[in-house]
Amino acid sequence: MKSELSYKDLKKNYDKKVVRKFSDMKNCYNNSDVKGNPVIYNVYIKDFGTFEAGLTVMESGAINKEFFMTKGHRHKKPRKELYILTKGKGKLLIQEESKTKVINMKKDKLYIVPPRSGHRAINTGKGKMEFLSLYAKDAGHDYNFKFKKRFFRK
Amino acid sequence: MKSELSYKDLKKNYDKKVVRKFSDMKNCYNNSDVKGNPVIYNVYIKDFGTFEAGLTVMESGAINKEFFMTKGHRHKKPRKELYILTKGKGKLLIQEESKTKVINMKKDKLYIVPPRSGHRAINTGKGKMEFLSLYAKDAGHDYNFKFKKRFFRK
Repeated sequence: MKSELSYKDLKKNYDKKVVRKFSDMKNCYNNSDVKGNPVIYNVYIKDFGTFEAGLTVMESGAINKEFFMTKGHRHKKPRKELYILTKGKGKLLIQEESKTKVINMKKDKLYIVPPRSGHRAINTGKGKMEFLSLYAKDAGHDYNFKFKKRFFRK
Repeated sequence: MKSELSYKDLKKNYDKKVVRKFSDMKNCYNNSDVKGNPVIYNVYIKDFGTFEAGLTVMESGAINKEFFMTKGHRHKKPRKELYILTKGKGKLLIQEESKTKVINMKKDKLYIVPPRSGHRAINTGKGKMEFLSLYAKDAGHDYNFKFKKRFFRK
């Protein structure tokens, strides 16, 4: 087993890969009148038994001026999630019952998503945005969560 | 709940703290004839339900020329562990049945400890060594594992 991995290595050395194309995210964007079916992001996942570590590699771009973003979800169980930015620039949107937080992600910081809150990452940069997320395998994903705040190119 | 943490913030904002003084590690060093009882390292732990994220902050120093190191352990269950160096310089020792790996840890890399292997971090730098480790809460810790390789100041 290879023990030392660059974030780049993880793109070849994963246990599971998730590909999100525009067609997987039609409900996320207001206007779905788009030509083609671009890949918005890929997630390269390593399995650690009771949790997973996923490297999300998100392209830079927009759908009718709305930035590329992750599908976003809320966990079914009350589980926290840990985010670490590894490349590029972007925002982390955390929507709790009463309030919404928009965080400009930085390297060398940790981001902890509280249990029961919806969360989504948005690539507002000119290059790829890459981040590591760590979450309990039993957390479950509710992708029907409705986010209020949206992010557009000026 | 605070969502954005620097690694420094984590030192105040933990769920659990482990302090390892020299007296907790007498079995690790060959010669225990040392004055005083220095703190070798502290671990600041955040609980994520099925896993934990620990920031280990290890002082720079040596006991009779043998570098400060973590106690080291092997998991009782076959669980992998993830290490990420966040500050300083040091080595990760991974001892499997048949072979021993000594890795010079670098920032911007991931280190995956295979299941059933003993592992220990060694601070070979002149300043504090800090790293994040992520492990399943059910992994269990066997601290009686015997490491063959040792690391001394020249």
